[in-house]
Amino acid sequence: MRRALMYGPEDVRVEDRPDPRIVESTDAIVRLAATSICGSDLWPYRGVETLQWPSPMGHEYAGIVEEVGRDVRAIGLGQFVIGSFFASDNTCETCKAGYHSSCIHREHIGSEGAQAELLRVPLADGTLVATPDLPAEDLILSFLAASDVLGTGWFAAVAAEVGTDKTVAVVGDGAVGLLAALASKQLGATRIIIMSRHPDRQKLALEFGATEIVEERGDDGVAKIKDLTNGLGAHSVVEAVGTQESMMQAIRSTRPGGHVGYVGVPYGVTLSGEELFFSHVHLHGGPAPVRRFLPELVELICHRTIEPGKVFDLELPLEQAAEGYKAMDERRAIKVLLTV
Amino acid sequence: MRRALMYGPEDVRVEDRPDPRIVESTDAIVRLAATSICGSDLWPYRGVETLQWPSPMGHEYAGIVEEVGRDVRAIGLGQFVIGSFFASDNTCETCKAGYHSSCIHREHIGSEGAQAELLRVPLADGTLVATPDLPAEDLILSFLAASDVLGTGWFAAVAAEVGTDKTVAVVGDGAVGLLAALASKQLGATRIIIMSRHPDRQKLALEFGATEIVEERGDDGVAKIKDLTNGLGAHSVVEAVGTQESMMQAIRSTRPGGHVGYVGVPYGVTLSGEELFFSHVHLHGGPAPVRRFLPELVELICHRTIEPGKVFDLELPLEQAAEGYKAMDERRAIKVLLTV
Repeated sequence: MRRALMYGPEDVRVEDRPDPRIVESTDAIVRLAATSICGSDLWPYRGVETLQWPSPMGHEYAGIVEEVGRDVRAIGLGQFVIGSFFASDNTCETCKAGYHSSCIHREHIGSEGAQAELLRVPLADGTLVATPDLPAEDLILSFLAASDVLGTGWFAAVAAEVGTDKTVAVVGDGAVGLLAALASKQLGATRIIIMSRHPDRQKLALEFGATEIVEERGDDGVAKIKDLTNGLGAHSVVEAVGTQESMMQAIRSTRPGGHVGYVGVPYGVTLSGEELFFSHVHLHGGPAPVRRFLPELVELICHRTIEPGKVFDLELPLEQAAEGYKAMDERRAIKVLLTV
Repeated sequence: MRRALMYGPEDVRVEDRPDPRIVESTDAIVRLAATSICGSDLWPYRGVETLQWPSPMGHEYAGIVEEVGRDVRAIGLGQFVIGSFFASDNTCETCKAGYHSSCIHREHIGSEGAQAELLRVPLADGTLVATPDLPAEDLILSFLAASDVLGTGWFAAVAAEVGTDKTVAVVGDGAVGLLAALASKQLGATRIIIMSRHPDRQKLALEFGATEIVEERGDDGVAKIKDLTNGLGAHSVVEAVGTQESMMQAIRSTRPGGHVGYVGVPYGVTLSGEELFFSHVHLHGGPAPVRRFLPELVELICHRTIEPGKVFDLELPLEQAAEGYKAMDERRAIKVLLTV
């Protein structure tokens, strides 16, 4: 089969590799309907993170179950399934508490590599969620979004305690930030302020439910959020970037007693205990336990209540994965779909 | 009147100073029934924090209202009242959200100085809570504890989401940590593990409701907490020290999805965004909004349901404030009561 591999920063190739096989009796093999490039795939692409080269890439997936191990019970051949970037057993104490991405048996899908035609999914019963029927073609993009960026944006909003009568601010206008705006609307927020200076992303944010746009960044951005919130800051702030500046922007845009939900991986970010202490904010985040939300997200997509697939603004065949990475790196695309 | 002043590190003196007067029409003057030394008073005493020398000291107080400004309505002459270290209006949006210590009109009582015979309390209606009747003499210690250390320990437990069926770990066996154990019991925790290596403090922790003691610190302490919690860590962890080591001990002792409530002022502490992210913990704390809890705490004390005054293990006249500081600094006393 064909698979994308990264040979080093800015070096993505698509090659023939052996088909994945069942290794554990709890595995499934999924034939991917489509796959995609994640903002976090840009970390190694930009040389910020080092992998074992060449590394299989990709962790966002949806498709048809082609084979299952002998201990797989809940998932059957021919079903359309969606999973998250961490395989999880869905039965341990951590999963039961809703933190599947810290499951005691978790395995990272990235090491399998979902930018490929076929994917081995460990712990299939715990990891995969099936749609009620084979979905209409035009829903596939949205299911693929649910696999990571929607699930992550949703978790960020939940971690930020978004709810009725709340004012939300979203730092970051990538796919996750945009979908955090969508999640905030679904969760009942009254005001949803997105911090963005890109007209195409602003437009999509408004479509998803954002009510206000702030173009300023850093201290100016914080001042603007305070202006808009009676001097106090937002109740709920989503951080969906992961840099020092964006993290401080999020914390400082939050009112005392408010909540920051952070999902941008904060490589190299340090927080001053003292500033955090006196800010009086709640801080929660981490690798999103997407599996917790998948059943609900699948239902919302099946009913066409939400259309998260709109974040894909560039479609390329898997063969052109390298061009997809380049487009996302240069911010010419919000999110790239790779057809297989 | 007599007042304690700090002239610099390890230099506390008691001197004659003019009686405080009503400055704003919302002020009250309280004749203190007793006052006390707080762990945070040791920061300047040890030279970690610099004040404007000589500085009035103290922010824990309870006593009889002796005078009120013309706009004071809720509080009357002769009432026995308790307040917190921040005066707060109790009417702004931040107070209504329960974050009185970030009240938009807050004033720090420390700059008035409660280690004295009389105290001016700004925003008296918002700040002070009166007991139903003049309290029995033996309850005064407990009301004084409610003013800060109990209120702070209580907030820490609430911030750590302590509740029924939860396992709690408390880092810090000072008055706040001990009273966080007491609060955890009241809030319904099943298991309360206190991290302490001082027999007298262990004894008091058990009296207050702790169920287990861990003597190890740092990584060993974390390993012990994990041993006791199925490898996962506690659901709720209270941090009541404020050093780099204690903060990391608290975060690492918490299970994924669990909650850290931190109330030790983390001067000079830095947190790695990355470690925090992958820990999956909730982090919340700050200067305790004691005023939020005072009505409930006063009731529990009046009914003798709790006896937080037990944390005072050394009683000295105000004149011997210097000896009180020394005893707390050398950890010969958990908490010092200064009689006036």
